[in-house]
Amino acid sequence: MTTARGRGRRPGGVDTRAAIIVAARGQFAAKGYDKASIRGIARDAGVDPALVHHYFAGKAQLFAETVDLSVDPTVVVGRIFEGDPARLGWRVIETFLLLWDPPERRQVLVALLRSSMTSDEGARALREFLNREIFGRIALATGASDPQLRGSLAGAQMLGMAVMRYVLKVPALVDAPNALIVERLGPILQAHLVDTAPEPD
Amino acid sequence: MTTARGRGRRPGGVDTRAAIIVAARGQFAAKGYDKASIRGIARDAGVDPALVHHYFAGKAQLFAETVDLSVDPTVVVGRIFEGDPARLGWRVIETFLLLWDPPERRQVLVALLRSSMTSDEGARALREFLNREIFGRIALATGASDPQLRGSLAGAQMLGMAVMRYVLKVPALVDAPNALIVERLGPILQAHLVDTAPEPD
Repeated sequence: MTTARGRGRRPGGVDTRAAIIVAARGQFAAKGYDKASIRGIARDAGVDPALVHHYFAGKAQLFAETVDLSVDPTVVVGRIFEGDPARLGWRVIETFLLLWDPPERRQVLVALLRSSMTSDEGARALREFLNREIFGRIALATGASDPQLRGSLAGAQMLGMAVMRYVLKVPALVDAPNALIVERLGPILQAHLVDTAPEPD
Repeated sequence: MTTARGRGRRPGGVDTRAAIIVAARGQFAAKGYDKASIRGIARDAGVDPALVHHYFAGKAQLFAETVDLSVDPTVVVGRIFEGDPARLGWRVIETFLLLWDPPERRQVLVALLRSSMTSDEGARALREFLNREIFGRIALATGASDPQLRGSLAGAQMLGMAVMRYVLKVPALVDAPNALIVERLGPILQAHLVDTAPEPD
């Protein structure tokens, strides 16, 4: 709990907040949720730990911010809602595969998936993020019934695919080009998020 | 490396092998893959560690055996192939939800999912098991094209649902009765495993 000043430490402000998030992402990716520390994140960001606490309620909130940035919900939701609603499912999978293509983003994704599986705080952060920011929002915007269930089942298909392709490295999914996965999962996600159940005559 | 005999240690045989698997399941569930040890498993089973090595090539094989038993592929595949092929997808999800209903089995499932996310050996064991024993087998038996990809995508939907319902505890999936999940995922798994892509006219 040193109250270090000077020695190149950054002053407060927008850049500091961003620097903390960048440092947090690095720590979560390298160490996982449990072993990452506010102290270590502050050190990597070149700021005093008190400043981290000033900007973020705690490690869980910092984690959630990191998730948000590494996926960028604005870009995601923006891309997905452009264009034909009848092709929304295809755009969901296409957008995420594109987001996950750069190796450094994929590394963060794998770290996040691992953290969420092994820490209650990580699980809560990912659960809240998925529910609130991604699938709940998509399903709500389509006006479908029971948006939370639809969003969760679509999320389950995406999450499972990400786990099997990037963590378990199942050969059939590693070897499949993005276009083939889009072709297969597009109609599935469309069914989950948009399509109505067939009405009885 | 004590070569303990007597003091109630079991002799070799079918019961010993079964006792080792039961002990391994307990250790993997309580400690995860990495922290479980052959020595600890032997102690819990009341046998000499050398006997564990006699029956199993190593921790990974023991893990795979544990997975097999906790899911019981014979029962699973049997149940799934009884009845109408046009309802296979529904039977897949119905069968797994039933298997995972008892709390002690669910606990093992959660431990296995965690192990597979945090250990390369765990990931390999689960990957090989899923590929060989469950989804590859189902998709092959239906005579569908590219069975490994179909099986993997169906597996991704199941795995993601299990992670979100039992590990992340996403409310919409925790609250949904099994019957509702069967209703929603039945047609999805049918599409992945059995249905042919629409032919162009």
